[in-house]
Amino acid sequence: MQVLIMYHSRSGNTKKLAEEIAKGVREVEGVTCVIKSVSEVTKEDFLDADGIIAGSPVYFGTMAAEMKEVFDTFIGIRKHMEGKIGAAFSTAGDPTGGKETTMFSIIQAMLIYGMIIVGDPLDASGHYGVACVGPPDKLAAENGAKLGKRVATLVKKLRS
Amino acid sequence: MQVLIMYHSRSGNTKKLAEEIAKGVREVEGVTCVIKSVSEVTKEDFLDADGIIAGSPVYFGTMAAEMKEVFDTFIGIRKHMEGKIGAAFSTAGDPTGGKETTMFSIIQAMLIYGMIIVGDPLDASGHYGVACVGPPDKLAAENGAKLGKRVATLVKKLRS
Amino acid sequence: MQVLIMYHSRSGNTKKLAEEIAKGVREVEGVTCVIKSVSEVTKEDFLDADGIIAGSPVYFGTMAAEMKEVFDTFIGIRKHMEGKIGAAFSTAGDPTGGKETTMFSIIQAMLIYGMIIVGDPLDASGHYGVACVGPPDKLAAENGAKLGKRVATLVKKLRS
Amino acid sequence: MQVLIMYHSRSGNTKKLAEEIAKGVREVEGVTCVIKSVSEVTKEDFLDADGIIAGSPVYFGTMAAEMKEVFDTFIGIRKHMEGKIGAAFSTAGDPTGGKETTMFSIIQAMLIYGMIIVGDPLDASGHYGVACVGPPDKLAAENGAKLGKRVATLVKKLRS
Repeated sequence: MQVLIMYHSRSGNTKKLAEEIAKGVREVEGVTCVIKSVSEVTKEDFLDADGIIAGSPVYFGTMAAEMKEVFDTFIGIRKHMEGKIGAAFSTAGDPTGGKETTMFSIIQAMLIYGMIIVGDPLDASGHYGVACVGPPDKLAAENGAKLGKRVATLVKKLRS
Repeated sequence: MQVLIMYHSRSGNTKKLAEEIAKGVREVEGVTCVIKSVSEVTKEDFLDADGIIAGSPVYFGTMAAEMKEVFDTFIGIRKHMEGKIGAAFSTAGDPTGGKETTMFSIIQAMLIYGMIIVGDPLDASGHYGVACVGPPDKLAAENGAKLGKRVATLVKKLRS
Repeated sequence: MQVLIMYHSRSGNTKKLAEEIAKGVREVEGVTCVIKSVSEVTKEDFLDADGIIAGSPVYFGTMAAEMKEVFDTFIGIRKHMEGKIGAAFSTAGDPTGGKETTMFSIIQAMLIYGMIIVGDPLDASGHYGVACVGPPDKLAAENGAKLGKRVATLVKKLRS
Repeated sequence: MQVLIMYHSRSGNTKKLAEEIAKGVREVEGVTCVIKSVSEVTKEDFLDADGIIAGSPVYFGTMAAEMKEVFDTFIGIRKHMEGKIGAAFSTAGDPTGGKETTMFSIIQAMLIYGMIIVGDPLDASGHYGVACVGPPDKLAAENGAKLGKRVATLVKKLRS
């Protein structure tokens, strides 16, 4: 079983949060974790994944065009994605500057891919996903790991 | 295993769609279906449910205040709802008049309750949930049943 | 010319932010400011206002049921609201816990009322409105005043 | 005074709706209308415009990556866009398949550019903007023209 963490990162903050989330995925025995930037990710990565956790910096309220392009161009494999687990994360420059709407832009794409969506668990923030302003601090890192673990645990439950 | 279908309906259209969704839930052996309006639903109904499918007519872009009140006042049982399945439906007077944002207002509440979200399956509309303008026609009824069946099937898989 | 600031507040935080926003409205000569809670506000307040700034604490991702009830029940005056200015604010317990989606639930209602929407100006946060976690700190207070001033200035320009 | 209509269109449906909207803009004396696809539009077009009406087909729930790229890459002129009028439109393959969330992805970008947002007027659909399934029919065409006229009228009022 495999979880793909897909990110776009210019400053490095979103990549750092991706790596924290990966730690949580790897806590779950039997689930492997692949981390790729949007420029590296392939259709095969989508097909091989049982769950995808996708994260973008906030660019004008929704995911970066570079990530949207991935969702748009992978349309041919849409029907193979149904029933896989999906979750979102984001990083921002401003505390109320689009982190939530960015995560929802990702969640909307995943729902249309037929995926099953989870937010971060109640012992993290218990909301739409994991997000932070600037680089992830200790709390964001911990919440990221909890999101990763939640997705991996659910993947294991559904695929076993 | 049990699925709760919660609706608010003044004209009767949303209730009709709820009943179509219930048919799909009942197709899955071992899963019972409870249908209640927001004025009838209790905290026990939430606690007893393994999945909730909630639907509202569009009132100014989000779920009716009567349904929001249910989510707001049941806050005390939030931590017991984590990991249950959630899905949304809506009915509208206008083709682009808030059906999607109404379903997202429900999805947002469910994510904060810690629930796991699914839209309608790809062999229905493959989007955020099931919606129609006016009373459900044949296609909306069929898609409703497919959503009900998807939720019930996932409940069975996760709870077995 | 008049701007209505409508809020719902249990803890007092949203009321405090409303008062900071009012300071900005009052900086604009010729524009009066009325502040009312959702339990006090009347249809006449809506009709008398040239602009409305509405704010809610985050309850499960959208405005509180008490505020939604106002928008739902004032439907009869919808056609008289077209072309008035609208803006949103919110307060939350969590940094990424629904402030944005709560402001959008308000913006969605206002758009369906036919209103013209502004966010907070670029010299504030330059996003969807003004929001804070807990009681407004100095920055949130300043940004609130800037939002109030922006709405009042636009009201004056459009109504003069 | 000038209104820019920016669209992305592969099938031609969104371009057709753009042209209907342009008819409404041109009804307002003193306001010129420029229509450009996202591959043609320049920063100067943004700067020259007093209002922008942007429309995209629904691709996985938000504007096409090609349009998002425009908003993302024009970040350098953000501060010059404050106070201009913005509105959205969309076309879809499915009646509840992302038209609203696509328009909101555009509205979110425009709010962060500091723009002032209007939906279509109450004598059109009175919601978030203008949208249709497939090519614009008579009603969508009329509503498009009403949106164009509303934006142009507001531009004239604010800039005069």
